[in-house]
Formats: sequence, C-alpha cells, structure tokens
Amino acid sequence: MMTVEHNKFLSGKQVAVIGAPFNGGQPQAGVEQGPLRLVEFGLANQLEEMGYNVSYEPNDDLDSLKPAEDPVVQNLKNPKFVSRVTQKLAGQIEQHAKQGEFVLTLGGDHSVALATVSGVFAAHPNACLLWIDAHADINTPEATESGNVHGCPLSFLTGLSQGHPEFAWVKPILDLGRLAYIGLRDIDNFEKKTLREHNIMALSMHHVDKWGIGKCVEMCLDRINPNRDLPIHLSFDVDALDPTVAPSTGTPVRGGLTFREGHYICEALAETGLLVAADIMEVNPSLESDEAVFKTVQVGCSLARCCLGESLL
Amino acid sequence: MMTVEHNKFLSGKQVAVIGAPFNGGQPQAGVEQGPLRLVEFGLANQLEEMGYNVSYEPNDDLDSLKPAEDPVVQNLKNPKFVSRVTQKLAGQIEQHAKQGEFVLTLGGDHSVALATVSGVFAAHPNACLLWIDAHADINTPEATESGNVHGCPLSFLTGLSQGHPEFAWVKPILDLGRLAYIGLRDIDNFEKKTLREHNIMALSMHHVDKWGIGKCVEMCLDRINPNRDLPIHLSFDVDALDPTVAPSTGTPVRGGLTFREGHYICEALAETGLLVAADIMEVNPSLESDEAVFKTVQVGCSLARCCLGESLL
Amino acid sequence: MMTVEHNKFLSGKQVAVIGAPFNGGQPQAGVEQGPLRLVEFGLANQLEEMGYNVSYEPNDDLDSLKPAEDPVVQNLKNPKFVSRVTQKLAGQIEQHAKQGEFVLTLGGDHSVALATVSGVFAAHPNACLLWIDAHADINTPEATESGNVHGCPLSFLTGLSQGHPEFAWVKPILDLGRLAYIGLRDIDNFEKKTLREHNIMALSMHHVDKWGIGKCVEMCLDRINPNRDLPIHLSFDVDALDPTVAPSTGTPVRGGLTFREGHYICEALAETGLLVAADIMEVNPSLESDEAVFKTVQVGCSLARCCLGESLL
Ligand SMILES: [Mn+2]
Ligand SMILES: [Mn+2]
Ligand SMILES: [Mn+2]
Ligand SMILES: [Mn+2]
Ligand SMILES: [Mn+2]
Ligand SMILES: [Mn+2]
Repeated sequence: MMTVEHNKFLSGKQVAVIGAPFNGGQPQAGVEQGPLRLVEFGLANQLEEMGYNVSYEPNDDLDSLKPAEDPVVQNLKNPKFVSRVTQKLAGQIEQHAKQGEFVLTLGGDHSVALATVSGVFAAHPNACLLWIDAHADINTPEATESGNVHGCPLSFLTGLSQGHPEFAWVKPILDLGRLAYIGLRDIDNFEKKTLREHNIMALSMHHVDKWGIGKCVEMCLDRINPNRDLPIHLSFDVDALDPTVAPSTGTPVRGGLTFREGHYICEALAETGLLVAADIMEVNPSLESDEAVFKTVQVGCSLARCCLGESLL
Repeated sequence: MMTVEHNKFLSGKQVAVIGAPFNGGQPQAGVEQGPLRLVEFGLANQLEEMGYNVSYEPNDDLDSLKPAEDPVVQNLKNPKFVSRVTQKLAGQIEQHAKQGEFVLTLGGDHSVALATVSGVFAAHPNACLLWIDAHADINTPEATESGNVHGCPLSFLTGLSQGHPEFAWVKPILDLGRLAYIGLRDIDNFEKKTLREHNIMALSMHHVDKWGIGKCVEMCLDRINPNRDLPIHLSFDVDALDPTVAPSTGTPVRGGLTFREGHYICEALAETGLLVAADIMEVNPSLESDEAVFKTVQVGCSLARCCLGESLL
Repeated sequence: MMTVEHNKFLSGKQVAVIGAPFNGGQPQAGVEQGPLRLVEFGLANQLEEMGYNVSYEPNDDLDSLKPAEDPVVQNLKNPKFVSRVTQKLAGQIEQHAKQGEFVLTLGGDHSVALATVSGVFAAHPNACLLWIDAHADINTPEATESGNVHGCPLSFLTGLSQGHPEFAWVKPILDLGRLAYIGLRDIDNFEKKTLREHNIMALSMHHVDKWGIGKCVEMCLDRINPNRDLPIHLSFDVDALDPTVAPSTGTPVRGGLTFREGHYICEALAETGLLVAADIMEVNPSLESDEAVFKTVQVGCSLARCCLGESLL
C-alpha cells in the first residue's frame, strides 16, 4: 500500500485517531457507536500497516458531560451537552494538531465539527475546509427548523451565528472564502440564500454531474487554496455518499456520490500533501441491516485510509 | 425550494397538468394508470408548494374515443384510437400553451407525443424538442416491426411519414434540425439510417459516457437552440433512465441514465428559462414490484419538479 | 445492428472464436466453463447475425496436456500445464491472426493471455495492447505472493521475467511503451513500483473518475498508438467491471467500471478500425447465483459484440 510520503504541515507519520462517540447533535441513537465500529473494523491496524504511528483517544466518557437539565436555548436542542462535549474534544484535537499530527476524527454526529474545526484551525489558522455532505450544515439557531445542532456547526464556525450563550467558546475562525462544499442535495431555503449571498463555493450533485468529480475537486481547491500552499481540513459526512453506498446514516438522501467519487475526493486531497485533518462523520451502526452497516463501516474505513495516502496505484 | 422566476415565453406561474391515461400506442396494459399515480403521489401539490398555480385535466374519458373496430392500417395497430385520442389532447394542449402556461403532460405511452408536440408547437412554432429516451421513436409505418405507434410519433411530426390516412391531422411541424436526442441505446436499423441520413443530433449512452451529461446537454442546445432564444419542449420517456432507477416501464433497456443524469437534464433545461413544456411518459405502475413502482413514480414526480425549477441549490 | 465495415488490418469479416477452457493459472475451478457458457448464450450466432463468418475452436481437449506431475517452479504453480496449454493456443491464434481474421478468445483464466498476446503479436508485430483489469497481472515469479500465473502473464510478455525454464517459449514481444491499462484498483506493491519505474500507461479507477472514460481511452491510445495506425489487441478481464455488473469472476474488487464504461471501451476501440483481437477473460460460471452468472455471461457476450462493431447508433 502506498502512502503519501511528504506532507508540508505534518512533522512525521503520526496519526491521532479521535473517537467522538456522540449523538447529541441530532435525535437518532446509534451514531455514538460509529467510532468504536470503525476501530473494531481494524482502522487503526490498517493505518499502522501503512506505516503510521497511531494513537487513539476513545473518549468513551463523554456521557459524564451530560447535564442534568438541558433545555432548548434559542431553538437548539441539548445545547449544554453539545457545547461541553465539543469544547472538550476541541482542546484535545488542538493539542494533537499542534504537535504536527494528522488528526482523524471519527463521529458521531456532525455537531462534532464544532470541535474538529475549532481544534484544527487553532493549530493551522490559515487552513481551508472542504465539507463533503448532502447537507450544508450552516443553519443558524434562528433559522433551523429541526433544532438539531448537527445542522448548524458551520454557522458558528464562520461567525454567521453569534451570541448563543452556550456556544460563546466557539470562535469564528473560518473565513467564508476558505469553505467549499461538494455533494449538496438537501438544503433548506435559508441555507440556499446564505450560500448565494456569501458567494460560498458550493457544489451540488448537479455540478458533479455537470463537470465530473475530478474537475469539481480542482475547482474547490482553486477557490479555497489557489496556490496549493494552505493546510486542508476535510470533513466528510458519509451521507454525502449515495444511500446504496453508505446506507447506515441518519439522514440519507438519494442521488449521492458513488463509491468511486467518494474515494476520489479523499485520494485527491491526500495527493496534495496538504491534508492535515479528516473527519468521518455520521456513521450510525444501529440503522439498516447488518449488511448495510458492514458496507457503511467498511467504506468509512476505506475513506479514512485514502485520506492518509492509500491509493490505487 | 427554488423555482426559476423568469421564463421568456410564459406569462406567469401557471402549470397545466395534462393527464394522458392512454395505452393504445403499445401492447402492455397499465401505462394508462401512470398519470393518476403521479398525481396521487402528490405532484400537483408539490408544484403548488413551489409557487405555481396548477390546473389539472385528468382526461379520464379517453376510452369513450375507442372505436368499435380498429383494424391495422399500413402496419399500425389501433390507428383510429391513437389518432382520435392524440388529436383531442393536442387541441387541449394547444389551448393551454397559447395562454402562456407551462404544459406538463403525464403519460401514458409515448404515442401521446403526437399530441404534445402538435399542441406545443402550434403555440410555439419555433420551439425545439429534446427527446430523452432509450428509443428513437422515429419509425415509419413502412419500417416498424412492432406496429406500435409509440415507436413512430417523430416520423409523423417531422414529416418523414406522410399519407397515413388516420394521421392526416398531424402536421409536420418539427424541423429535423430542431430535434435532439439523449439516452439512445436500442435503435432499429431503419432508425439508425434515418438518424444518420438526416444528420439528426442523436446522443446515445456511448456519448454520455464519452463526454459526460453536462457536455451532452450543452451540445444538444448548441445545435437546436444555438442562441438560447427559442422555446424548448422536453419529452422524457422514463425508459431513458436505467432500469434500476425507473423499473416500471414497458420497454426497459440496461445501461441507461443514472438518477442523477436524468435530473441533471431537467434542471439544466429549467435553468435556461426557455422550457415551455415537458412530457413524463411511459410510467407503467402495473409492471414490477410495489417497490419498483414507488421508485418509478417518485422519480417521475421528481423529474417533473426539476423541469419546473426545483434545484439542489 | 451496425458493424464496422473497414478494418485496416483484417482481410474480411472473419472471426475466429478461440475457446480457452482453462483454469490452471489460478486456484478456483469453474473458470474453465467460461467459453462454453458464452457460446451457449449464443455469441457465435450473434456475430453471424452481425454479418461475420465465424469459426469456433472449442479446445475441449486441453486436459490431455495436464502433466502427471507439475511441481512449483520458481514460485509458480502448475507451470508445465500452463505453459503447454498456452503454447498450444498461441500457435492456433497465430495461424488465425495471420490469415487476417479477427481473433476472439474466450477464457478461461488470464494466464491464457500468454497465448493470445504471443499469437496475435506474432501476426501483428507492431500491435499495441490495451489491458482492462482490476489487476496489473505483471508480477514476476520472484515477486508473486500467490504463485498463480494469471497474475504474471505481462511480466513474461514484456521480458520483465526471463529465464523461467517452463516459459522459455514465450518471447518478449511486447514493448512496455505499447501497453496501457484501464480499470486498475488492486495492485501489489511490486507491481506499483514496476508500473512507475517503467513509466507504463496505467489508469486506475481514480483516473477514470478524474477524467471520465472517454478521455481515458483517448489518452491510452495517444500513448500507445499515437497516429492511430497500429493494430490493437484488447485483453478484457471481466473483473475490471464492478462486481454488481460482472459478479461471477474469481477476484472481484469493489469500485469497478460500470456496465456503460465497459461497453464504451469496446465500442471506442472498434470504432478505430484497428482492433484485431479481443480476449474476454475470467468469466467463472460456477461462482455466485444463477442470476449473477447470467448477468456475467450476458455482459461478456455483449462486450465481445461491441468489439466487433455493435454500436448503439
Ligand atoms: Mn453533515
Ligand atoms: Mn449530512
Ligand atoms: Mn419513447
Ligand atoms: Mn423508450
Ligand atoms: Mn487479469
Ligand atoms: Mn483481474
């Protein structure tokens, strides 16, 4: 297996695997088992066989952060719990990232991106973010219809949402010009408006069909990393993949990325030698059949390996 | 949900949904239930939610036009019945189109295109036609092997067939230079010859693979609507889609358009602001499993919504 | 059905179908039934309907070449048996090719390419070879981990392996600059190194996603047949196709060519008017369900017909 030998921003072949067994950002139980299933599938060993030193933070004590009471605040559900968990994980991620390690975070629901982006950008302030998702996850507390924080992390991280008392710790470290999406196909009206008004680089499945995945990745990097000299953080929600490829996820949407396109993205980013962190999010092993779970966990591991340089040739 | 706000040729946000519950152009019963199933699935309401005023002509009395006797004439089966039904629908469609309404026709078998193209082009004489189909539907009465009129409408509409006594009312309103195909993959030898001899813009699945669907749509429009200033009529036979995407149709053929490519076409045409009519044809809810029917009806509705401006972003 | 009328290197419309019912190059029984199943499916008749004169060599006596003892030599299993069979078939293929016939070889495992490439290149010494496969099949006796010859034929044919006593008859007739791959996705480290060091034109599924299959075929031909004036030999391992398309094969690998991409390749090569031989390899009718076998055999026949000019338009 080949791995990328040179990464401009990492000091060696050290991967910090951060377990984020958390489901508080959305209503369906099961997604908190994602990290363990990915690790049990052999992900850490696979990375070691690729030549990496792997550390693993299971974080299986997150429930201890659950408050006795956690009423809705400004429309958001479980705000205290989400905030405490993601703040804790953010600190952990920041530490690993500052030591020049590749940070691989395993979700858990996508509210955990509050932690990953905060932590990674604290270490790499000029990084850019590629968000692979069927959803834009950029709702504000005012606009969200569901009240689930996993649909909102990017509004906090970009400063579009400010003043929510529970998320005061989240700094608006992400410039909107450093954010790009691929895979979008289920977007709220408010989000559509936001993406347009702020001229955010947002490629839907329509664009993937129009230009092909190769061109789409190139266009995103041209926009958010034009000289290919900035660190890259990839946040991959497995619901970006077609439900036939990754069925066990909370909010599947038809018409998604193929198995090959999903891997293409990870391989292409690894090839840049600039990727410093990757999130594999929203694997929910309690949804759908055993076979579906196997498929989803397998593809999750395989995407992660590609982020770390596994390639076909 | 976003809708296209400006259409160069329509006077407002008015959609005429024309039910064409008709199966006389081919041998399999069931396709006459297509329109009702699409409407029951909620299509009209969905369009209203998108901001359209929707009228609906169920045309559930078409059987009354069935002649007592209807012998084969010049190889064509049910010629009287097909002719009477399509002539009636053509008049209805023409009226709606002339009032500046978007005409959305729900088949029914593809012989109904005798009605839709006749009606739409009576109102928009300089329109062009994009035909999305596994089949070319351009057989002549002399050349057809099956005798099914759903394989022949374009020969009448383009004037390649003339002199059939039952179809004297059909005017050759479609110039061959204003016709383009996407999705072809099951074409008779006579049809292949016709397409070549007349230099018709015909893109098979081979071309979709060669250039991608984005480029294919662009090439078709460059040919039949080079200045992007002519009205567009889309006739979408769901058998253009792969049988895994739209299984419940009378003549499925392997190797078809993906879910994404099918939607891409409709979205791209809606984006032009020139689309004045769309046909969703050959949904046959009596074929294949309940799940297959659900899938096919769902995709039919979804294609229709995309024609009216629903988009991913 | 259309067929390519002019082939620069063939004297008429004569196809020699060479059965290669052989499984000695790998461990799984069943692949020796591939040729018979393809023929029983009607392949020969289909080619005749396309206007070809078809001869058929079933070669159902290959077992008579099996030696009483056949110990591993230089890591390779069944070296005597593989060598005898492929040498015999090579002579047969050479004869047909020298008579200006199109040679269509039906495998059988891919060790049979020792025969097809040797035979075809004896008749067409300046030919180029397009190898469609999930695997590179370019292991050397020293490097192979499995010892299966079906993973090694290209090392012998290109002269990378020399001196194996059982394969002294195989001449290194294939220049590495005349070899191109499409579909790679399961390559040993030794093979990756070989492909890179010798700068071999090797396109993985990553490249198919990056550029599209149309561009990939073009790039391969630009490299190995830049003036489009050399004979082309296509060796198609059905495991290049996605397992959902061709499940009944010995070493399936996820993320393969779609039904459409596989056919695209064959159609595009036939279109050049330069294709002189095609191998359809690794169809194993004893693997997976009856439905899977039907699918695989059907696609094998369909690929073969496309190589001989069947086209969608
Ligand atoms: Mn998400
Ligand atoms: Mn999502
Ligand atoms: Mn049709
Ligand atoms: Mn059709
Ligand atoms: Mn092979
Ligand atoms: Mn193979």
